[in-house]
Amino acid sequence: MSHSPHPDIRGSPWFVESVTELTYHGVDIGLLEGGEDLVELILESTSDSLGLQDDDVLVVSSKVVSLAEERIVDLEGVPVSERAERIADVTGIDPREVELILRESTVLGVIPVAEIAPGRLESYAVSSEAAAEALESLPSLLVTNWNGRLCTNAGIDLSNSPAETATLLPADPNESARQLREEIRERSGTDVAVVIADTEVSHRGGSVDIAIGCAGIDPVDSSFGATDLFGNPKVGGVDLIADELAAGAALLSGQAAERTPVVVVRGLEYEPNGGIETDAELIRSGIWLTFKRTVQVKLAEYVPFRRS
Amino acid sequence: MSHSPHPDIRGSPWFVESVTELTYHGVDIGLLEGGEDLVELILESTSDSLGLQDDDVLVVSSKVVSLAEERIVDLEGVPVSERAERIADVTGIDPREVELILRESTVLGVIPVAEIAPGRLESYAVSSEAAAEALESLPSLLVTNWNGRLCTNAGIDLSNSPAETATLLPADPNESARQLREEIRERSGTDVAVVIADTEVSHRGGSVDIAIGCAGIDPVDSSFGATDLFGNPKVGGVDLIADELAAGAALLSGQAAERTPVVVVRGLEYEPNGGIETDAELIRSGIWLTFKRTVQVKLAEYVPFRRS
Repeated sequence: MSHSPHPDIRGSPWFVESVTELTYHGVDIGLLEGGEDLVELILESTSDSLGLQDDDVLVVSSKVVSLAEERIVDLEGVPVSERAERIADVTGIDPREVELILRESTVLGVIPVAEIAPGRLESYAVSSEAAAEALESLPSLLVTNWNGRLCTNAGIDLSNSPAETATLLPADPNESARQLREEIRERSGTDVAVVIADTEVSHRGGSVDIAIGCAGIDPVDSSFGATDLFGNPKVGGVDLIADELAAGAALLSGQAAERTPVVVVRGLEYEPNGGIETDAELIRSGIWLTFKRTVQVKLAEYVPFRRS
Repeated sequence: MSHSPHPDIRGSPWFVESVTELTYHGVDIGLLEGGEDLVELILESTSDSLGLQDDDVLVVSSKVVSLAEERIVDLEGVPVSERAERIADVTGIDPREVELILRESTVLGVIPVAEIAPGRLESYAVSSEAAAEALESLPSLLVTNWNGRLCTNAGIDLSNSPAETATLLPADPNESARQLREEIRERSGTDVAVVIADTEVSHRGGSVDIAIGCAGIDPVDSSFGATDLFGNPKVGGVDLIADELAAGAALLSGQAAERTPVVVVRGLEYEPNGGIETDAELIRSGIWLTFKRTVQVKLAEYVPFRRS
């Protein structure tokens, strides 16, 4: 059986364009301890084998941005308030971590991870002992409003941090991205976009990376109402480009590969402007209206209203 | 200023491995109308310029799987029940679409899209007229439980469908993925993994692609409790690999590029087994426990409990 293309498309201009390509290069920049010159590390690590090019998108893990910006807190020096103690008692989270979360954000709720699916996380674990130990260190996640953004534990992470320290999120991830982009341009003459990515909980129960800041790239495709293949305006076209980049890059930077916290994406066509907007207000109004209309629909489903 | 690597890493085995690479190839398979031989189209469209290789991951849009499987319903032939009429009245969704949604799934709630952020979607639209027209055609989204999976409108989409038809999700996306994988192996001798992707609403207000079925690849990284860079077991490592692949592929298949519904991902190391599990039960128990524990934490935050 032949697998060659139809004669009518082979060699046509349409066929030439039928394969588009996007490449993700994971870059190992070594292990950071805090205060490093991240731009220098990125330029050094990419200069030989890859070389940065104009229009590349750099997806950078928030962890290394935080470390470079020395957003590192010594846990021993954190005085724990009574409020933090009480939340720690109920949730099982390290009281010092709770204290930092309360300083950085507003607590909206708690996801009792260890309690939700007993036995389920073990099936995704390297071993049941390791699962038990990890869950004991962090049995719950606090849902927080951090600078207008919904995230867990205010983005504070004790893993992959030097011993007895916590790493806070970059104070202003859009600004961090802008600075990285500017400095890369100044030092190398290359015009790249930067997306800062952070790992977050998915509603499906695992985690994916999302974008928390960006510069030089519009994080959202503004094609709402664009016509579909059949010429009708459609609900859609608000693709979260920056989130898709973060998720795609996590295939290289995630997993056990925390040493490749920079991923260079080459081949993407994108709009050059924009930063990540906050989402908390949208979510707040969205949840309230969704609740109201859901009650209305569930009533309508079973109780006939009088038609207008 | 030099951008060459440090002398101590240049040429070392560590440096050689410091850049890893993943390539996404978008494949235009042409416009489907229903009942096509999808495997043949994929093999034809990739044979010249790309060629499928063992261990490639094919991310395939659910829409073309549905069309190939002829999951197409003529809207004119759909008799609308009173229940569907009432929900359509309250939500503004086409009664025939509501009827199909009720047949395919259980309605859990409604997101009143047009109402949540007046003016906001317009800023992401190609034009305010197009936005108004799109919102008029679909002012709300029903949140549904479709075969144990949370999704909007039971995954039924009227866009990119032939006129006056609706496209249903593949009846069993894991099985569809398995069949695609099998047939590709039989006809080309190539051993690929298949992920079936669908566009879904993000809690941030836009959309990203997620995986609804897969074959030949474990959709979840089972590294929960793996030690971090500092040797401590960490909460994490349950990366949703298949979702990350779907999101990354959407950069090529999404946007206006509905004609590239197949993306070949090359270079990923993955575990060969697994399918997408349902998430509705996990979410149900998760929401309930999260609500209970949130009340407890909010109480603890402000009212001192007696310590044990």
